[in-house]
Amino acid sequence: MSEFFKGIERIRFEGAGATSPLAYRYYDKDRLVLGRRMEDHLRFAVCYWHTYGWDGGDPFGGDTFQRPWHGMADPMAAAAMKADVAFEFTSKVGAPFYTFHDRDIAPEGATPRETVDNLRRMVDVLAAKQEATGVRLLWGTANMFSHRRWMSGAATNPDPEVFAMACLSVREAMDATRKLGGENYVMWGGREGYETLLNTDLKAELDQMARFLSMAVDYKHKIGLAGPILIEPKPREPAKHQYDYDTSAVACFLLKYGLEKDVRMNIEANHATLAGHSFEHEVALASALGLFGSIDMNRGDLLLGWDTDQFPNNLGEVALVLYHILKAGGLTTGGLNFDAKVRRQSIEPVDLFHAHVGAMDLCARALLMAERMIQDGRLDQAVKERYAGWRGEFGQQLLGGHLTLDAVAARALAANRDTTPRSGRQECLENLVNSYI
Amino acid sequence: MSEFFKGIERIRFEGAGATSPLAYRYYDKDRLVLGRRMEDHLRFAVCYWHTYGWDGGDPFGGDTFQRPWHGMADPMAAAAMKADVAFEFTSKVGAPFYTFHDRDIAPEGATPRETVDNLRRMVDVLAAKQEATGVRLLWGTANMFSHRRWMSGAATNPDPEVFAMACLSVREAMDATRKLGGENYVMWGGREGYETLLNTDLKAELDQMARFLSMAVDYKHKIGLAGPILIEPKPREPAKHQYDYDTSAVACFLLKYGLEKDVRMNIEANHATLAGHSFEHEVALASALGLFGSIDMNRGDLLLGWDTDQFPNNLGEVALVLYHILKAGGLTTGGLNFDAKVRRQSIEPVDLFHAHVGAMDLCARALLMAERMIQDGRLDQAVKERYAGWRGEFGQQLLGGHLTLDAVAARALAANRDTTPRSGRQECLENLVNSYI
Amino acid sequence: MSEFFKGIERIRFEGAGATSPLAYRYYDKDRLVLGRRMEDHLRFAVCYWHTYGWDGGDPFGGDTFQRPWHGMADPMAAAAMKADVAFEFTSKVGAPFYTFHDRDIAPEGATPRETVDNLRRMVDVLAAKQEATGVRLLWGTANMFSHRRWMSGAATNPDPEVFAMACLSVREAMDATRKLGGENYVMWGGREGYETLLNTDLKAELDQMARFLSMAVDYKHKIGLAGPILIEPKPREPAKHQYDYDTSAVACFLLKYGLEKDVRMNIEANHATLAGHSFEHEVALASALGLFGSIDMNRGDLLLGWDTDQFPNNLGEVALVLYHILKAGGLTTGGLNFDAKVRRQSIEPVDLFHAHVGAMDLCARALLMAERMIQDGRLDQAVKERYAGWRGEFGQQLLGGHLTLDAVAARALAANRDTTPRSGRQECLENLVNSYI
Amino acid sequence: MSEFFKGIERIRFEGAGATSPLAYRYYDKDRLVLGRRMEDHLRFAVCYWHTYGWDGGDPFGGDTFQRPWHGMADPMAAAAMKADVAFEFTSKVGAPFYTFHDRDIAPEGATPRETVDNLRRMVDVLAAKQEATGVRLLWGTANMFSHRRWMSGAATNPDPEVFAMACLSVREAMDATRKLGGENYVMWGGREGYETLLNTDLKAELDQMARFLSMAVDYKHKIGLAGPILIEPKPREPAKHQYDYDTSAVACFLLKYGLEKDVRMNIEANHATLAGHSFEHEVALASALGLFGSIDMNRGDLLLGWDTDQFPNNLGEVALVLYHILKAGGLTTGGLNFDAKVRRQSIEPVDLFHAHVGAMDLCARALLMAERMIQDGRLDQAVKERYAGWRGEFGQQLLGGHLTLDAVAARALAANRDTTPRSGRQECLENLVNSYI
Repeated sequence: MSEFFKGIERIRFEGAGATSPLAYRYYDKDRLVLGRRMEDHLRFAVCYWHTYGWDGGDPFGGDTFQRPWHGMADPMAAAAMKADVAFEFTSKVGAPFYTFHDRDIAPEGATPRETVDNLRRMVDVLAAKQEATGVRLLWGTANMFSHRRWMSGAATNPDPEVFAMACLSVREAMDATRKLGGENYVMWGGREGYETLLNTDLKAELDQMARFLSMAVDYKHKIGLAGPILIEPKPREPAKHQYDYDTSAVACFLLKYGLEKDVRMNIEANHATLAGHSFEHEVALASALGLFGSIDMNRGDLLLGWDTDQFPNNLGEVALVLYHILKAGGLTTGGLNFDAKVRRQSIEPVDLFHAHVGAMDLCARALLMAERMIQDGRLDQAVKERYAGWRGEFGQQLLGGHLTLDAVAARALAANRDTTPRSGRQECLENLVNSYI
Repeated sequence: MSEFFKGIERIRFEGAGATSPLAYRYYDKDRLVLGRRMEDHLRFAVCYWHTYGWDGGDPFGGDTFQRPWHGMADPMAAAAMKADVAFEFTSKVGAPFYTFHDRDIAPEGATPRETVDNLRRMVDVLAAKQEATGVRLLWGTANMFSHRRWMSGAATNPDPEVFAMACLSVREAMDATRKLGGENYVMWGGREGYETLLNTDLKAELDQMARFLSMAVDYKHKIGLAGPILIEPKPREPAKHQYDYDTSAVACFLLKYGLEKDVRMNIEANHATLAGHSFEHEVALASALGLFGSIDMNRGDLLLGWDTDQFPNNLGEVALVLYHILKAGGLTTGGLNFDAKVRRQSIEPVDLFHAHVGAMDLCARALLMAERMIQDGRLDQAVKERYAGWRGEFGQQLLGGHLTLDAVAARALAANRDTTPRSGRQECLENLVNSYI
Repeated sequence: MSEFFKGIERIRFEGAGATSPLAYRYYDKDRLVLGRRMEDHLRFAVCYWHTYGWDGGDPFGGDTFQRPWHGMADPMAAAAMKADVAFEFTSKVGAPFYTFHDRDIAPEGATPRETVDNLRRMVDVLAAKQEATGVRLLWGTANMFSHRRWMSGAATNPDPEVFAMACLSVREAMDATRKLGGENYVMWGGREGYETLLNTDLKAELDQMARFLSMAVDYKHKIGLAGPILIEPKPREPAKHQYDYDTSAVACFLLKYGLEKDVRMNIEANHATLAGHSFEHEVALASALGLFGSIDMNRGDLLLGWDTDQFPNNLGEVALVLYHILKAGGLTTGGLNFDAKVRRQSIEPVDLFHAHVGAMDLCARALLMAERMIQDGRLDQAVKERYAGWRGEFGQQLLGGHLTLDAVAARALAANRDTTPRSGRQECLENLVNSYI
Repeated sequence: MSEFFKGIERIRFEGAGATSPLAYRYYDKDRLVLGRRMEDHLRFAVCYWHTYGWDGGDPFGGDTFQRPWHGMADPMAAAAMKADVAFEFTSKVGAPFYTFHDRDIAPEGATPRETVDNLRRMVDVLAAKQEATGVRLLWGTANMFSHRRWMSGAATNPDPEVFAMACLSVREAMDATRKLGGENYVMWGGREGYETLLNTDLKAELDQMARFLSMAVDYKHKIGLAGPILIEPKPREPAKHQYDYDTSAVACFLLKYGLEKDVRMNIEANHATLAGHSFEHEVALASALGLFGSIDMNRGDLLLGWDTDQFPNNLGEVALVLYHILKAGGLTTGGLNFDAKVRRQSIEPVDLFHAHVGAMDLCARALLMAERMIQDGRLDQAVKERYAGWRGEFGQQLLGGHLTLDAVAARALAANRDTTPRSGRQECLENLVNSYI
């Protein structure tokens, strides 16, 4: 076991009165919330890329973290050390799951063959780690955006040979995910989009992307990979425009190409806001479309125009998101993956603990708040009352498709009286939400 | 005939050397562009609401224009005067079409009955005007956002009685459009959205909206209204979130509810940018999805967060949009409607001429630029070359669905060599576009 | 006394366990917080314009509220009824202050003379109301943006005759404020800005604005108006660009024209975010520049691009703003004015209570949280420690101006060793802030 | 001389009919425009960092360009090769100037001493190159943002030892600039700002920054460095908030600390738009404040929230910026530096030529357009007429400070008549601008 975090013990639940910054005040994993264990509700995952892969670099400056494995000459030795640290961290923080891209766990080789071998070897290493610690894999994915080869897209590349390389990457990443018992498989179309329409055949690229996804769905069935394929929407960055812009764009794509049966959505807070939506909007919309799968929990800075991937820290907002998820049935194969990174000035290993412990505790506290919202029922009741008319006879006839436009128009004209607006009561409901804090 | 614009004659084409600010330097309606008359390409329409309806008010101040018809005590007399002015203006500016909302042409009455009667009377007035001037109706629509009754939505209202009123409005507006020979019918979901999810049943509202649209489609067929129903996407304003957010959201909705056959998209420049997309993106995407219908031509100010509805004035941008439209087959039933308004300090009647003449001339100049781009062919050629691999044997096999992920992965692994990136040539292509100015 | 809010009694503090939505759970005006009464800390004000003046209209639709005074034929009778309602509301809600624009309290007349007379008459009415209820005036201001005359600006108008009209407005509004014991006078440059640089002489307009402010400062001294003149920054809306863009722009203007002695800043949350800043940034910067005066408390929607003026409902954010204000010495002549409006669907009079009671209670709760932050001291301590080096000898020499660039460079080169970065501890501090909730 | 761009000859002016993509159609450096050579008007500079330093990496992917010097083991040999390529490129493209950061031209060493030595050695190399080619240095600057040491700021660092290192960097960069005959010295406060106010003493950091700038000004005078120090505003990125936010923030800072005499502004297009301003606004404001110095010419993508640093390609926009610069007297010591980079898919060396040649030609064409605007005079005339009243007796009295608020108010009240609004003519003027294309 790694000793990178020497001196930091496994984080424990100590109750609301805990004084240590590294204790859970709310996250009591076995506590029942609406009849289910907190851990099973929240299904926390620690991600490999931000937590161990990122070196603190940003577009204007390099490495600030100087993790020992970043400086190693032998990339496979670095991968092994990273794995040690990853399982030490995830165990100590007490998250049941982890997540990765293929390139997070195993380095690119000099040839495709070597890359594949690297990955397969590291899968064995991770399998042993999982066995030893009990940490499980929430999902795996393939990084098809960092290497130069993907600069013009993977499945949507103008060159079919790159498409073929993407097939190889996804086959291997799916195989790895299956071997490690991953409960979902994620696709994030990092470079599936365009920089300028001037050099882009948009229709052709959408067709390519659909073909690729269709092949991946078939392969998933073939190898018996459990759980759905999840697509993660993001509107822009790195590309100017990314095809998986938001929930609507992904759903449109799935419906257009008949892929809505096997695919669900992995919704990220910061990607939602970059697309101009609130996080709960994207969750609610995906649920309404029957396509909700999992979440990447983080927060953006709405005054900044890029993906800041900060840890969540707004209690009320997280509570509303969890409220929407609970009302839609809660997480099943999906989880709550912290696609979040400490700020680049947070250079100490302990900062990783502050970030995850604070975020997990915030989510737990938000879950308890969502529980109160549901048990109390006033919020739900307010919505029900507002739409009561649609449960009446006329409303049901309309929804049932039994009335023509003409007939309804004639009815309204015959009645010859205006309708009566009712207050939307927004401020009252906002106060109600705050009362659950 | 009105004499509101006394002293201003019909605007004429005078060629590039024209010195008058009120002459066309490029818009020569009978000039053939790619084998079609300019007028038939551009299908300009002057809109009723911004041009005659708006009084110059904004959220921080009232009427600056003081048009005579705004101050009249008798609303039907005002409607008649407005109609006089509208046909004077459209004729003088030389646009073949106009567009309206029901409430633009006829005032709300004290009762639904009176409202319906007002509209029917004004339709007769407009029919006579069309006959007299040759100006035609591009499309009509119903204003279901201004009156207090629609404050919580029309089809998506929590009260089914408001839905019924919407049925009445749309039936009447469709009837009016048919009687006036309108070539399309537009839906803009001004209040179809929400202010807060706290009081909203998103799924229920989408179902209501689908039911409504389905009834409207049936009615269209019943009365034999020519041309498609057009939905106009807009992401927000007045609502915090509008269901018809962008092309993807509308297409998703149509596909989800099986309405994609009878409905097309009316795409507006300023709505595109408010949703985070370029205008040409929305046009290109709608075309790729087979859902492109018509455009609302205007421009937004990307440094401002609301719908400024300014007249277009960027030659290169308009040329690129027209290029995409031409490549997708050009406008058929659709047109180029100026959903644009003069600034509120532009209080003189002649300012309406400056705005429309400048915009029409800019579009004509842009059309000539798009013609050069197509005739020259270098832009198209660059794209074709970039995707050449997909027209080869391997590309065709992939697209044809004849290869599994596994097989393609095996092929890539067997080849065991990386791909060769090629330059995207963006700057070169941008220079090329500028060379057509 | 008005009976518009019949059935609603004066709102009372009932403690954290209160079940009524219309009770204060935290706002206990006489409770001491850091040695000062809550009421004296928070200095709440109810604004006239949003609360009584706004009719629910937005750019896409008209009146939804239908307040009785909006429909009255006699504008002075309407003003009297509005005043009745205003003092009933402010008293019942328990805010010590109110605020107004001249045009909120008295209607524009047919001539300047009549307008002045209307205002002077209403000042007498309000004076009697203040006397009767104990409600005081936080500040007054002049509306120089709604009337058509101001469409191209007031002090920055291209026409000096409009500047003269602005002098009249401000003289009268200042006189009114003095007579009513107003504790500050506010300037908001609603139309002081431009729509396009094409028709604007930016330098000339800045000079005009400085002249105007200078004249107003002189007049303030002449009439002995207590308290500072406050300028309220806003970046845009209604104008494309407003000269009082943000705290920096206002401070730059004051410094450039030598007006920094007599003027302070009235900072609004929603205006801050429209300018790309957090609310606490603007407060902290104004404090650092010695120019902080008062706040307009509200919230914007960062996914929307216009001034939504919603009531505050984010506990953590409000607590941080109050923390910064307390650390800068707290409010003196300034106050916490709710420049906020209920949503246009919140059409019931009781919605005004939900909004204000919820907001006042949230601010009180946030004040208690800020008190804990200050008493605990860990946040302050963390900052102190981070800058400890600057209190050392070398730091003090640098700040004291005793060392040249050359000398310090030579010292660094002689030492010839790199510095040691220390963690910024952001996540740890964010967790700390959340622990005060 | 390098042969990196083998096969590409010096780019020549071939006139508007040129068919080669690598020829100037408008940039004829000796052509007189308003009595001054084009080259002297535009003072083009090629920047070191984007053109030779950047490897094509972005936050989601690495090196795409694979320039030979990026892979070299010996950093000083790489620096030498880079210098060869830089002077080959700048000569061939025909730009009279170049610009650099210290770290662009010479690598960081293992110790401060070594770093200083590296820089001094490379200055000698560059001096020889300048001599050989005639290419001159527009300005130099110090990179105080890339290295880990600067992660919490340079002058605004919580650690005074980092401040000392910044003194060393700036002394050396200023010395280098002087030796190479640089015509200005630039400061860009890359990390002068904050990530969170929670760990920041804003007032202390502003004081530190002022101290630093003051020391740099003194040093400039001491060594006789010609030309002004230029500060380059940018609102955010890399920091959440940067102190040099925009022209107003920088001017406020200079005025507050009495530094406005020796410092001017280097304004960048993309930084302007990130701050919510148009480029011409920032230029016009800096001119109005007497602080305009130089420009970083590029363009952003207003639909993206980060600094895309694309090459300019909007003719009308660039023409308006040049119009404002010409009206303010034109560039003196400043220049037009292309702080712009080719897209990361533009991997061929020739793409650098397409980018620069296209941009220089666009600017030349825009200059000719600005010349027409000035010679024609109609735009200027329209503004003059609009403000004519201020040149009359009453206007002059007002501006001269001879009238009190009270007296002007009394005058307006005595006249007792309203003012007469005049059209702002925005659309007419926009058409006029387009007519110069």
